[in-house]
Amino acid sequence: MYVTIVYVSVKPDKIEVFKEACRINHENSIHEPGNVRFDIMQSSDDPSKFVFYEAYKTQQDAAAHKETSHYQAWRDTVADWMTEPRRGVTYQGLYPIAHS
Amino acid sequence: MYVTIVYVSVKPDKIEVFKEACRINHENSIHEPGNVRFDIMQSSDDPSKFVFYEAYKTQQDAAAHKETSHYQAWRDTVADWMTEPRRGVTYQGLYPIAHS
Repeated sequence: MYVTIVYVSVKPDKIEVFKEACRINHENSIHEPGNVRFDIMQSSDDPSKFVFYEAYKTQQDAAAHKETSHYQAWRDTVADWMTEPRRGVTYQGLYPIAHS
Repeated sequence: MYVTIVYVSVKPDKIEVFKEACRINHENSIHEPGNVRFDIMQSSDDPSKFVFYEAYKTQQDAAAHKETSHYQAWRDTVADWMTEPRRGVTYQGLYPIAHS
Protein backbone atom coordinates (compact mmCIF):
# COMPACT_ATOMS: atom_id res chain seq x y z
CA MET A 1 0.00 0.00 0.00
CA TYR A 2 1.00 3.60 -0.57
CA VAL A 3 0.04 5.59 2.51
CA THR A 4 -0.15 9.31 3.15
CA ILE A 5 -0.81 10.72 6.62
CA VAL A 6 -2.01 14.31 6.37
CA TYR A 7 -1.96 16.68 9.36
CA VAL A 8 -4.42 19.57 9.29
CA SER A 9 -4.97 22.46 11.71
CA VAL A 10 -8.36 24.17 11.46
CA LYS A 11 -9.61 27.54 12.67
CA PRO A 12 -11.74 26.98 15.80
CA ASP A 13 -14.89 28.52 14.33
CA LYS A 14 -14.61 26.34 11.22
CA ILE A 15 -14.31 22.94 12.91
CA GLU A 16 -17.89 21.84 12.36
CA VAL A 17 -18.11 22.89 8.70
CA PHE A 18 -14.69 21.34 8.13
CA LYS A 19 -15.92 18.02 9.51
CA GLU A 20 -18.92 18.10 7.19
CA ALA A 21 -16.72 18.84 4.13
CA CYS A 22 -14.48 15.96 5.16
CA ARG A 23 -17.40 13.58 5.51
CA ILE A 24 -18.37 14.24 1.90
CA ASN A 25 -14.76 13.81 0.75
CA HIS A 26 -14.50 10.53 2.70
CA GLU A 27 -17.72 9.11 1.28
CA ASN A 28 -16.60 9.78 -2.28
CA SER A 29 -12.95 8.79 -1.85
CA ILE A 30 -13.68 5.30 -0.52
CA HIS A 31 -15.31 4.51 -3.86
CA GLU A 32 -12.17 5.28 -5.89
CA PRO A 33 -10.93 2.05 -7.50
CA GLY A 34 -7.48 2.07 -5.86
CA ASN A 35 -8.55 3.25 -2.43
CA VAL A 36 -7.97 1.02 0.61
CA ARG A 37 -8.47 3.45 3.51
CA PHE A 38 -9.66 7.03 3.75
CA ASP A 39 -10.00 7.50 7.49
CA ILE A 40 -10.38 10.88 9.14
CA MET A 41 -9.79 11.58 12.81
CA GLN A 42 -9.78 14.46 15.27
CA SER A 43 -7.27 14.92 18.07
CA SER A 44 -8.40 13.86 21.53
CA ASP A 45 -6.42 16.72 23.05
CA ASP A 46 -7.03 19.54 20.58
CA PRO A 47 -10.24 19.49 18.49
CA SER A 48 -8.69 21.86 15.93
CA LYS A 49 -6.21 19.16 14.88
CA PHE A 50 -7.24 16.58 12.28
CA VAL A 51 -5.43 13.69 10.65
CA PHE A 52 -6.23 11.93 7.39
CA TYR A 53 -5.02 8.37 6.93
CA GLU A 54 -5.14 7.72 3.20
CA ALA A 55 -4.06 4.32 1.85
CA TYR A 56 -4.09 3.41 -1.82
CA LYS A 57 -2.97 0.27 -3.58
CA THR A 58 -0.33 2.20 -5.55
CA GLN A 59 1.25 5.65 -5.72
CA GLN A 60 -0.56 6.12 -9.02
CA ASP A 61 -3.89 5.49 -7.33
CA ALA A 62 -3.02 8.13 -4.71
CA ALA A 63 -2.12 10.59 -7.48
CA ALA A 64 -5.43 9.88 -9.23
CA HIS A 65 -7.26 10.93 -6.06
CA LYS A 66 -6.00 14.48 -6.57
CA GLU A 67 -7.59 14.56 -10.02
CA THR A 68 -11.08 13.77 -8.73
CA SER A 69 -13.77 16.42 -8.53
CA HIS A 70 -14.56 15.56 -4.91
CA TYR A 71 -10.93 16.07 -3.83
CA GLN A 72 -10.69 19.36 -5.69
CA ALA A 73 -14.01 20.55 -4.24
CA TRP A 74 -12.81 19.67 -0.72
CA ARG A 75 -9.44 21.37 -1.29
CA ASP A 76 -11.05 24.60 -2.49
CA THR A 77 -13.78 24.58 0.15
CA VAL A 78 -11.48 24.19 3.15
CA ALA A 79 -8.52 26.26 1.90
CA ASP A 80 -9.36 29.31 4.02
CA TRP A 81 -10.33 27.29 7.08
CA MET A 82 -6.82 26.09 7.91
CA THR A 83 -4.45 27.94 10.24
CA GLU A 84 -1.38 26.72 8.34
CA PRO A 85 -0.64 24.66 5.23
CA ARG A 86 -1.51 21.01 5.72
CA ARG A 87 1.40 18.58 5.85
CA GLY A 88 1.48 15.14 4.25
CA VAL A 89 3.96 12.35 5.07
CA THR A 90 4.21 9.26 2.88
CA TYR A 91 4.80 5.66 3.91
CA GLN A 92 5.05 2.21 2.47
CA GLY A 93 2.17 0.27 3.97
CA LEU A 94 3.53 -3.10 5.14
CA TYR A 95 0.52 -4.74 6.79
CA PRO A 96 -2.10 -5.50 5.71
CA ILE A 97 -0.63 -6.57 2.40
CA ALA A 98 -2.79 -5.05 -0.35
CA HIS A 99 -1.98 -6.30 -3.81
CA SER A 100 -2.29 -3.86 -6.67
CA MET B 1 -13.55 4.70 16.63
CA TYR B 2 -10.77 5.15 19.15
CA VAL B 3 -7.52 5.60 17.22
CA THR B 4 -3.91 5.54 18.34
CA ILE B 5 -1.07 6.46 16.00
CA VAL B 6 2.22 5.11 17.31
CA TYR B 7 5.59 6.37 16.08
CA VAL B 8 8.55 4.01 16.40
CA SER B 9 12.23 4.48 15.59
CA VAL B 10 14.22 1.26 15.12
CA LYS B 11 17.95 0.52 15.16
CA PRO B 12 19.13 0.09 11.57
CA ASP B 13 20.41 -3.47 12.07
CA LYS B 14 17.09 -4.52 13.62
CA ILE B 15 14.76 -3.31 10.87
CA GLU B 16 14.13 -6.69 9.27
CA VAL B 17 13.54 -8.60 12.52
CA PHE B 18 11.34 -5.74 13.71
CA LYS B 19 9.20 -6.04 10.59
CA GLU B 20 8.78 -9.77 11.17
CA ALA B 21 7.77 -9.25 14.82
CA CYS B 22 5.27 -6.63 13.66
CA ARG B 23 3.78 -8.96 11.06
CA ILE B 24 2.99 -11.49 13.78
CA ASN B 25 1.50 -8.78 16.03
CA HIS B 26 -0.60 -7.49 13.11
CA GLU B 27 -1.94 -10.93 12.21
CA ASN B 28 -3.06 -11.59 15.76
CA SER B 29 -4.35 -8.10 16.52
CA ILE B 30 -6.77 -7.96 13.60
CA HIS B 31 -8.63 -10.89 15.15
CA GLU B 32 -9.33 -9.08 18.42
CA PRO B 33 -13.11 -8.53 18.74
CA GLY B 34 -12.96 -4.72 18.93
CA ASN B 35 -10.27 -4.17 16.33
CA VAL B 36 -11.05 -2.15 13.20
CA ARG B 37 -7.54 -1.40 11.84
CA PHE B 38 -4.07 -2.53 12.78
CA ASP B 39 -2.01 -1.15 9.93
CA ILE B 40 1.77 -0.91 10.02
CA MET B 41 3.85 1.27 7.72
CA GLN B 42 7.46 2.24 7.10
CA SER B 43 8.65 5.73 6.21
CA SER B 44 9.37 6.36 2.53
CA ASP B 45 12.25 8.66 3.50
CA ASP B 46 13.78 6.85 6.46
CA PRO B 47 13.38 3.05 6.69
CA SER B 48 14.13 3.12 10.43
CA LYS B 49 10.87 4.99 11.09
CA PHE B 50 7.64 3.03 11.49
CA VAL B 51 4.07 4.03 12.21
CA PHE B 52 1.26 1.92 13.63
CA TYR B 53 -2.31 2.97 12.87
CA GLU B 54 -4.47 1.20 15.45
CA ALA B 55 -8.24 1.72 15.42
CA TYR B 56 -10.62 0.09 17.85
CA LYS B 57 -14.36 0.42 18.27
CA THR B 58 -13.92 1.78 21.81
CA GLN B 59 -11.20 2.93 24.19
CA GLN B 60 -11.88 -0.20 26.22
CA ASP B 61 -11.15 -2.36 23.19
CA ALA B 62 -7.83 -0.54 22.72
CA ALA B 63 -6.97 -1.13 26.38
CA ALA B 64 -7.81 -4.82 26.02
CA HIS B 65 -5.20 -5.05 23.24
CA LYS B 66 -2.49 -4.36 25.79
CA GLU B 67 -3.63 -7.35 27.83
CA THR B 68 -3.18 -9.82 24.99
CA SER B 69 -0.30 -12.26 24.89
CA HIS B 70 0.63 -11.27 21.33
CA TYR B 71 0.92 -7.58 22.26
CA GLN B 72 3.02 -8.39 25.32
CA ALA B 73 5.25 -10.74 23.32
CA TRP B 74 5.78 -8.02 20.69
CA ARG B 75 6.47 -5.37 23.34
CA ASP B 76 9.09 -7.51 25.07
CA THR B 77 10.67 -8.74 21.83
CA VAL B 78 11.21 -5.30 20.29
CA ALA B 79 12.03 -3.36 23.47
CA ASP B 80 15.77 -3.29 22.84
CA TRP B 81 15.43 -2.65 19.11
CA MET B 82 14.14 0.92 19.42
CA THR B 83 16.38 3.97 19.47
CA GLU B 84 13.98 5.91 21.70
CA PRO B 85 10.70 5.25 23.52
CA ARG B 86 7.82 4.90 21.09
CA ARG B 87 5.21 7.67 21.11
CA GLY B 88 1.46 7.19 20.83
CA VAL B 89 -1.07 9.91 19.98
CA THR B 90 -4.80 9.30 20.39
CA TYR B 91 -7.66 10.48 18.20
CA GLN B 92 -11.38 10.22 17.85
CA GLY B 93 -11.98 8.43 14.57
CA LEU B 94 -14.70 10.36 12.69
CA TYR B 95 -14.96 8.50 9.37
CA PRO B 96 -15.64 5.72 8.74
CA ILE B 97 -18.27 5.58 11.46
CA ALA B 98 -17.71 2.34 13.37
CA HIS B 99 -20.44 1.55 15.86
CA SER B 100 -19.45 -0.15 19.08
